[in-house]
Amino acid sequence: MSEKIGFIGLGIMGKPMAKNLVNAGYSLVVLDINTSAVNELTEMGAEAASSPADVASKVSKIITMLPDGPQVDEVVLGANGVLENAGSDTALIDMSSISPTVSKKIAASLAEKGARALDAPVSGGEPGAIAGQLAIMVGGPEDLFNDVKPIFDVVGKSAVLVGDTGAGQTCKLVNQILVGIHIEAMGEAFLLATKAGVDQMRVYEAIKGGLAGSNVLNAKVPLVLDRNFKPGFKINLHQKDLRNALEAATTMGLELPVTNIVQGMIGDLVDDGKGNDDHGGIVQALEKTNGVEIK
Amino acid sequence: MSEKIGFIGLGIMGKPMAKNLVNAGYSLVVLDINTSAVNELTEMGAEAASSPADVASKVSKIITMLPDGPQVDEVVLGANGVLENAGSDTALIDMSSISPTVSKKIAASLAEKGARALDAPVSGGEPGAIAGQLAIMVGGPEDLFNDVKPIFDVVGKSAVLVGDTGAGQTCKLVNQILVGIHIEAMGEAFLLATKAGVDQMRVYEAIKGGLAGSNVLNAKVPLVLDRNFKPGFKINLHQKDLRNALEAATTMGLELPVTNIVQGMIGDLVDDGKGNDDHGGIVQALEKTNGVEIK
Repeated sequence: MSEKIGFIGLGIMGKPMAKNLVNAGYSLVVLDINTSAVNELTEMGAEAASSPADVASKVSKIITMLPDGPQVDEVVLGANGVLENAGSDTALIDMSSISPTVSKKIAASLAEKGARALDAPVSGGEPGAIAGQLAIMVGGPEDLFNDVKPIFDVVGKSAVLVGDTGAGQTCKLVNQILVGIHIEAMGEAFLLATKAGVDQMRVYEAIKGGLAGSNVLNAKVPLVLDRNFKPGFKINLHQKDLRNALEAATTMGLELPVTNIVQGMIGDLVDDGKGNDDHGGIVQALEKTNGVEIK
Repeated sequence: MSEKIGFIGLGIMGKPMAKNLVNAGYSLVVLDINTSAVNELTEMGAEAASSPADVASKVSKIITMLPDGPQVDEVVLGANGVLENAGSDTALIDMSSISPTVSKKIAASLAEKGARALDAPVSGGEPGAIAGQLAIMVGGPEDLFNDVKPIFDVVGKSAVLVGDTGAGQTCKLVNQILVGIHIEAMGEAFLLATKAGVDQMRVYEAIKGGLAGSNVLNAKVPLVLDRNFKPGFKINLHQKDLRNALEAATTMGLELPVTNIVQGMIGDLVDDGKGNDDHGGIVQALEKTNGVEIK
């Protein structure tokens, strides 16, 4: 008999992940405020739940894939939340990207009922979710990680246990700081090349194999040159991640000057109505200030 | 009979490059103010010259590998410079990393005597020079590039003709902007992880294959965690390259805010006597400001 697991949050990421789990033979109990997404899953054989508490009454392993910390907090700790029906066999697998502080708070509340949690945010965006090729960064107990690994193997191409509770979220913040700054680096470097009148693809070909090479360049240089900012991963989601990173830094007494600058640029772009562009489009802030487009 | 070429500048980069050319069968006419470096080459069979003009009287192809633009300007256009004995068969192959503006000025002066030039700066540092594995970024006439390609194949693993005169130097500036900002990105990301108490190598393993992955991370994360700042490529050379980049940007009316910040950090480190550290040590500026070391 197939294992029955809960899945709360059937958005742009959660829905394809849930479908991959159904297709891999798992019995799903699903929940979302979007009834059409729920219907897509029930038509595939999943069971619809009426509340997070209802999900927790029906299954022991519950995946959450929600927009940010406040939503995870509400679903787990709020009225009719997971916590109400959590017991010693309950395991929350929160795959949302949220603040490590919120992950620790939720894990501590669950622990009072003997329940356990993994924070397991992902990288790879919608294409990775659809293809089951996400990179999963996990924090929490090792035996629970090992127990859940078959689920991660369905939705992801890799799952690494980075450390204790919150370490998965910290790893995601590290990831997003790197990606955000790398996009800005690409912007500054290729804007200089544009103004100098040099062929950008030849520059890219000349440098990609050396120390300047990066996966951001490989993924985004061709898109920026095509002025293709269709998401991918939206600027306003990157804004959320850097907000969580900067809040975590402030809490720990750290100043991250370049992360701050990039977040300021992202804020300007969101104000300009570009929040739904792909995050490769962060270069547009620099282009606007300088009155020149990379081409 | 083996081709005879000139080589001016037998420093940390030039000397191993010249040796590789001798070992590949070229007859070299060499020049440097450091007589012990010259002696090393003459003991291998190279001929010593008395001035850049002397080199130009003996060979048609002349490689220069010098610290910065003023030195290349002096060697080519100064008293007893290459220009004095340059003719229509003379080809200057300047492999120094200098301002594209200086490269264009030198090429224009040589052109008045019918002589030609390539700007051909490299990436790969001392290890790349020793191994003959440099990445060479070239600007100038295509037929001259093709003519010189066998020389590039001895000292480098790749040589890409990026565009016209100055394009090689512009490409090097693009490279150094990217590398400098990527090092700072690594610093901000891994300082956050350090303060959060997460195992850095596990974080690196979890993210390296995704969008955050870069050659800077691959090369520098292990060294930073070992507090190993032995050069490699020195911070004060990166300072020179970013100075050339920011001067080029200013000339073109561009503002590069993050490049500016990184250059400010490098200036603080040079003031602190760390200019001879490897450029991976740029993270030390952020560490000092925050009073925490990455570990």
